[in-house]
Amino acid sequence: MASSQEKGFGRALCIITGASKGFGWSLAREIAPLLKPGSVLLLAARSGDKLQTLQADLAASEASSAGLQVRCVVADLGQKEGVESVIAEAKETRCEDIDHLLLFNNAASLGDISRYAQSFTDMSEMDSYLSFNVSSALSLTSGILTAFPQRSGLQRCVVNVSSLCAVKPFRSWVMYCTGKAARDMMFRVLAEEEPELRVLNYAPGPLDTDMQLQARSTSADENMRKSFADMHEEGRLLTCEESVAKLLKVLLEDDYPSGTHLDFYDL
Amino acid sequence: MASSQEKGFGRALCIITGASKGFGWSLAREIAPLLKPGSVLLLAARSGDKLQTLQADLAASEASSAGLQVRCVVADLGQKEGVESVIAEAKETRCEDIDHLLLFNNAASLGDISRYAQSFTDMSEMDSYLSFNVSSALSLTSGILTAFPQRSGLQRCVVNVSSLCAVKPFRSWVMYCTGKAARDMMFRVLAEEEPELRVLNYAPGPLDTDMQLQARSTSADENMRKSFADMHEEGRLLTCEESVAKLLKVLLEDDYPSGTHLDFYDL
Repeated sequence: MASSQEKGFGRALCIITGASKGFGWSLAREIAPLLKPGSVLLLAARSGDKLQTLQADLAASEASSAGLQVRCVVADLGQKEGVESVIAEAKETRCEDIDHLLLFNNAASLGDISRYAQSFTDMSEMDSYLSFNVSSALSLTSGILTAFPQRSGLQRCVVNVSSLCAVKPFRSWVMYCTGKAARDMMFRVLAEEEPELRVLNYAPGPLDTDMQLQARSTSADENMRKSFADMHEEGRLLTCEESVAKLLKVLLEDDYPSGTHLDFYDL
Repeated sequence: MASSQEKGFGRALCIITGASKGFGWSLAREIAPLLKPGSVLLLAARSGDKLQTLQADLAASEASSAGLQVRCVVADLGQKEGVESVIAEAKETRCEDIDHLLLFNNAASLGDISRYAQSFTDMSEMDSYLSFNVSSALSLTSGILTAFPQRSGLQRCVVNVSSLCAVKPFRSWVMYCTGKAARDMMFRVLAEEEPELRVLNYAPGPLDTDMQLQARSTSADENMRKSFADMHEEGRLLTCEESVAKLLKVLLEDDYPSGTHLDFYDL
């Protein structure tokens, strides 16, 4: 494949949501050197401070001097306006100048894992959760794909940062599991509909992030807490860097079936 | 199993959402004779007229004279108040008088199948869809299980009326597939959390209902329309009665693994 031979993504517009920390942060840093001069790296997150720090880091790196433009959008993707501002910023990129569009739907929340499903009697809680974690990812993806339609010479790829929880239920994680299962299916439908588009549901494995800390400290289920604590103590959590590296390798090789669910441990 | 030997569900509180037509309507009619005197059949739907017709039908049947109480709740389950009114009505049933609780989460909508995923740029559309089809089912289930807690002598069972779309993506059906995948996972988590509870995700097969008419006439994807039209023309659509019969058989035999997804054609 062309992109694999070049060891990079060419001149790309690369959009990463939830870029201020964790997996999204590492992804921004690791993908930057793989983007050719003239590329745009668009980073979205709620925290402006962290985005600016990341932008400064990237500006000081070789990638920046190689002509990479890094743009930040401070946006809450749980709100319609947040999604719109990311799309508006992306549209500033001249479509005809890029040969690769990469959208990483990484932003997500764990939801309230301190309670069991039976306690979710107030539907507005699940409504808000699904709005941020499911509807938002669809509307952002749709908006970006509409702004950058299929054309000869443009390779388009959408990644959903998924989870084992998309395919396996876990006690006290009803929000997270439900949201991830919904997202996987949503992107599978998109893959069916758009044969030219490359769609990947990537489960990054158990990462040593803030989310993991939350998982091992606040999961209502004791076995879940213990399982995560054991992984942490025994050094079995993955670094974001190693999981990002595997994702980038898969994307560069570009021979996965579009719409598939790939787990770090399957690769 | 006891209930299989008795060929019935004992003295039950049986709740069916979306009971005014299609699968829910047939389910109400077929399950009524399997409920012992003293049972309550609680039917919820948006259409009061249709519910009343069904109630009158049931009142004229043998089941009614056998001491079955049929109650109707006109409720929009896309609204918090609708869910609450079903729970309030269920609470009128004296918990200590029943030995079986059956909740059928049947209410659902097809969503807009006339468009492809890429057109869903307005997140409020998916928000409303998921609220009615996912959050509502969780809050109703949680509310009912909380109102009728686990106790010796009470068998509790929750059925999610699922679909092949919960496990397989279809073009132009992004809402329906996403919602059904989310529901399946939500009920799988519930099954993990509540080992005493019986949870079944039942995919009823392609039914000869209003929803099928909508499917074959309005699906954006031509192959989808053709596939449904062929099924209709060739008489391959199932009647609600035959699919309900298979579901009731599974429930009476009661040896499915809790949380599993069972399809009409697997049985």
